[in-house]
Amino acid sequence: MTSRPQVLVPLVTPFRPDLSVDRERLVTIGKRLIADGADGLAPFGTTSEANSLSVSERIDALEALVAGGIDPAVLVPGTGCAALPDTIALTRHAVSLGVRGTLTLPPFYYKPVSDDGLAASFARVIEAAGPALRLYMYHIPQTSGVPVTANLIARLREAFPGMVVGLKDSSGNWDNTAAMLDAFPEMEIFSSSESLLPRNVAAGGAGCISATANVNAHGIAALIRGLGTPDEARLLDAVTEVRRRFEGPDLIPAIKAAVARRMNDPEYARTRPPLVAMDTAAPAIAEAAALAGGVNEDA
Amino acid sequence: MTSRPQVLVPLVTPFRPDLSVDRERLVTIGKRLIADGADGLAPFGTTSEANSLSVSERIDALEALVAGGIDPAVLVPGTGCAALPDTIALTRHAVSLGVRGTLTLPPFYYKPVSDDGLAASFARVIEAAGPALRLYMYHIPQTSGVPVTANLIARLREAFPGMVVGLKDSSGNWDNTAAMLDAFPEMEIFSSSESLLPRNVAAGGAGCISATANVNAHGIAALIRGLGTPDEARLLDAVTEVRRRFEGPDLIPAIKAAVARRMNDPEYARTRPPLVAMDTAAPAIAEAAALAGGVNEDA
Repeated sequence: MTSRPQVLVPLVTPFRPDLSVDRERLVTIGKRLIADGADGLAPFGTTSEANSLSVSERIDALEALVAGGIDPAVLVPGTGCAALPDTIALTRHAVSLGVRGTLTLPPFYYKPVSDDGLAASFARVIEAAGPALRLYMYHIPQTSGVPVTANLIARLREAFPGMVVGLKDSSGNWDNTAAMLDAFPEMEIFSSSESLLPRNVAAGGAGCISATANVNAHGIAALIRGLGTPDEARLLDAVTEVRRRFEGPDLIPAIKAAVARRMNDPEYARTRPPLVAMDTAAPAIAEAAALAGGVNEDA
Repeated sequence: MTSRPQVLVPLVTPFRPDLSVDRERLVTIGKRLIADGADGLAPFGTTSEANSLSVSERIDALEALVAGGIDPAVLVPGTGCAALPDTIALTRHAVSLGVRGTLTLPPFYYKPVSDDGLAASFARVIEAAGPALRLYMYHIPQTSGVPVTANLIARLREAFPGMVVGLKDSSGNWDNTAAMLDAFPEMEIFSSSESLLPRNVAAGGAGCISATANVNAHGIAALIRGLGTPDEARLLDAVTEVRRRFEGPDLIPAIKAAVARRMNDPEYARTRPPLVAMDTAAPAIAEAAALAGGVNEDA
């Protein structure tokens, strides 16, 4: 990777009071984050509660983002489901809209499964989606239970030249990221935390796709601009401190509550079960949102 | 529980060469297992590769079982998906067909999640399905990553009297099963292994819903008939020895390969990715199938 480092946002999914997807607010927050400095959006990731959405909800919401004016070329939607036909349907649909690529989980119910089985699954997805697909693989073993190994990536890259272009390493394990950067220097390898962004970029990585970019895209964009300048350490400390306020088992509800504060709109805080919404007035949320700052203040 | 102990079969899902669901063979194996002595079928469980099927495939296949002549009153289909709308759709559909109940996983992507969040999820499923639902909860934390706790069950039973009637404990942890039997003596509590069936029944349990019932329903039915007789220990040893031959990471492919041998039809061995089919001619499969015996020999 030699292009400019990037921050992509695994966009939160707003819900209406009846828990249906709030497409209008999805478009609003997506556009706002791009205005904040995000290089693109990775909707329907873990932070997006994507695996709490049906296939048709995901298709409708992706169409809403494009219809709402977001360039498909900056979109890397999540498309990986437990069931192969669902993953195929979402990936084909995303490709049909002209997205930059898809960020695709391995099938995540059955475990342990072999790389043979995972390669067969991804091969069917890639063949069904066709040559316009650019696949970013999604490694988040602590949640999915199914790791994306270097062996699996190598097999797929050999079988489908030019199509398996990226990886999001959400393991939080820098040794794994470093090994992937070493093994696949031509791939776009993203960390899941802005705290690792300078290290990732120095080793040839692509940047980060980070949950906290939903509240701090401007801060992470500033860090990217400051890489290699005297400001780098200060900017890294700043984004790391914001991230630290959100990390933990309630990461997603906390981010949604902070988004709600920053958008001055409590609707953004709503989650779909099994997640439980957090109180936007909770002192920890208020402090974390204030620390992230940004949207209202900058707008 | 005071009614007769039961064995329900988490029915394997046959696939055609194009990996679509083979509804004809699904009905054939389902009827054969009932003829073998199964008290009912629990299709679309873990062994059924249910979480590799789309919602519409599961709906079509359940309708095929009923249209094929299987009494809905013996069916306890799996309906739990990662996404709440999918679980609601499948549960409502199953209830509309008049099934005995549904065996429902908690939402299994996000983890850890609180009992508050799981209770909210199940409450929406129960409310959407209506009062005819009889819910059997499905505890398989080693695969789902999301345990069904006694606290969760107690809350749901209090909120929805008469509707949360059963539990399949697939943890393999007898202490957990014993605690559940003690806490909920009025529930139908099934073990996932026939090896635990006598202990389960002696403690007031309902029987077993066991993967290996796909190849040994007749043996498990014989064990149930033999409970409390001088034959019990011998019958238990026999089913335990069959089960031992299948246990391990390839449980599902091994069972499908053995089903294929016993039905004299290699089509039954096919799996959907990420599972990898086993060779029906492998000596371990041949021996395991021969030990289970039954279908062809008895037919």
